[in-house]
Amino acid sequence: MKKFINKPSDFVNEMLEGIYASHSDQVTFVGNDLHCYVRKQMKKDKVGIITGGGSGHLPLFLGYVGDNMLDGCAVGDVFQSPGADQILEVTRSVNQGRGVLYLYGNYTGDIMNFDLASEIAITEGIQIATTVCNDDVASGIKGEEHKRRGIAGIFFVYKVAAAAAAKGMDLQEVRSVAEKARANVRTMGVAFSPCIIPEVGRPTFSIGEDEMEIGMGIHGEPGIRREKIRPSDEIVKEMLLPVLKDLPFSARDEVCLLINSLGATPKEELYIIARKAIKIIESQDIAIFHAYVGEFATSMEMAGASISLCRLDAELKRLISVPACTPFFVQNQL
Amino acid sequence: MKKFINKPSDFVNEMLEGIYASHSDQVTFVGNDLHCYVRKQMKKDKVGIITGGGSGHLPLFLGYVGDNMLDGCAVGDVFQSPGADQILEVTRSVNQGRGVLYLYGNYTGDIMNFDLASEIAITEGIQIATTVCNDDVASGIKGEEHKRRGIAGIFFVYKVAAAAAAKGMDLQEVRSVAEKARANVRTMGVAFSPCIIPEVGRPTFSIGEDEMEIGMGIHGEPGIRREKIRPSDEIVKEMLLPVLKDLPFSARDEVCLLINSLGATPKEELYIIARKAIKIIESQDIAIFHAYVGEFATSMEMAGASISLCRLDAELKRLISVPACTPFFVQNQL
Repeated sequence: MKKFINKPSDFVNEMLEGIYASHSDQVTFVGNDLHCYVRKQMKKDKVGIITGGGSGHLPLFLGYVGDNMLDGCAVGDVFQSPGADQILEVTRSVNQGRGVLYLYGNYTGDIMNFDLASEIAITEGIQIATTVCNDDVASGIKGEEHKRRGIAGIFFVYKVAAAAAAKGMDLQEVRSVAEKARANVRTMGVAFSPCIIPEVGRPTFSIGEDEMEIGMGIHGEPGIRREKIRPSDEIVKEMLLPVLKDLPFSARDEVCLLINSLGATPKEELYIIARKAIKIIESQDIAIFHAYVGEFATSMEMAGASISLCRLDAELKRLISVPACTPFFVQNQL
Repeated sequence: MKKFINKPSDFVNEMLEGIYASHSDQVTFVGNDLHCYVRKQMKKDKVGIITGGGSGHLPLFLGYVGDNMLDGCAVGDVFQSPGADQILEVTRSVNQGRGVLYLYGNYTGDIMNFDLASEIAITEGIQIATTVCNDDVASGIKGEEHKRRGIAGIFFVYKVAAAAAAKGMDLQEVRSVAEKARANVRTMGVAFSPCIIPEVGRPTFSIGEDEMEIGMGIHGEPGIRREKIRPSDEIVKEMLLPVLKDLPFSARDEVCLLINSLGATPKEELYIIARKAIKIIESQDIAIFHAYVGEFATSMEMAGASISLCRLDAELKRLISVPACTPFFVQNQL
């Protein structure tokens, strides 16, 4: 296991200590629990937004906590849901009296724990609304979108919901923006290699030296098929065409594009993907408002990439353009 | 070779096409040559700063071209120097009549080609100054700093020199700031795995499943020793203590810290490194003004990391704090 790691059981805590030490001006923790991650300076009188999920996906999830972005994150162990008590602790900390939106990915453990935290928070007089992201077209057929997992496309939902909250919208308005974005985001990925969960010590799955798995999840969940690796332009089609077809995205739509590395895949290759993706999108008379390229949702050192599209209307475009600043993501006004 | 790649010989051109397509509002190329990379909107009446070097190190080198950063970059093939003609083309394009600073890493091919371009540019009436970065303490003993390679620490030199140029300083002043930063930056890295150059098709070197190489260069140049992998905190000492000792950095110094991934090493591990590095630095009564953690100078999918320190005085601190924005690097005012 070639990792910068001390004791595998300390992996998440030491990572969190490193984040707090590196960005002590921007983020901190509450409840005497490193896993209860919040902004250092809470903005007053706004709807709070929190997320949560397992570790091992940086910058997901905690990396989107910051100015004009999220207010807090309940951090689980590697690929594990955070506890309801941790979600509740973060909820209490970010609540400014205008309620809190729970915004996270469609995974059973996360749903269970966020729902449990929500029940308790409501008894404490905190208004809660929930949006569960499910952008991965590979993990459920059309008509069964409720089975789909949340992956990199959640970034767009964070971005617009957080901008809406920063503008002073109320809880139902913020949730409504989040739901609109959620409904307009689609993602599909391809994995080339597994990652190693530190406490397990061996790869999450095995795959041939010349194989790729299309539609694999960010925890190594099985994809829709495994096949021989092919030229990048063909792999891009395998990812992008199902995304375009699913919503569907149509001529004269305007979109944001996200080319995401699952971890080990370098930026050089992301741009080879971007080149072909942009050609295909523009050939369908779909306009790209902005392209994001980089690491947005990873599986530690997994090699692979995903492509996400978010269809924009005037409101989403305005909100996606708002500047934002976290220790992991900085955007100027678009 | 598990890469998102079409024909290996198209790797760099397709990467560049992807970058221009993704960030068409920010960057473009001149001389009808994709390798001659420049800002789209040149800021007028300032000293120009250009860099250059081989591909395969993103965001190095071209990723630092943008607002309050560099003005252009001559892009070589993977791990190859750009040609003198390309450097010259970029030089002419960014020159605003106040001269151009050449700022790049200490590699024979780059020096030869930048020097050749410089000679021609001068005959054309363009003032040229040069700063060659050599931050890698592993590649030359103290007293033989001229043998040291430039690696991730060049980021600090870019940042302050570009801020100085943006503030309107003249060529000699900008060069003087760059030289001050250069003299105050030290880096050391450790590699866990090789990368594959697309046109070669096999790993740049071989290394045992339980081995690491201390001080390896970003092109796979031999380091100072190879040994069994150890707990992260011990590897951090192997990297950081030689860095601290070399300048030397001393009690009451103020520094910027850079924890850099060589590519495949995920952010989770970078923060485990950061945690220990910050403890060691602060235990020596050295203050950390700002910590940068992420991918700043890579070798495509190489696993490994480096630690850089830049000692600050009031001027460097002011310049490092200036906002900057490129397609690969955005910083708000610190």
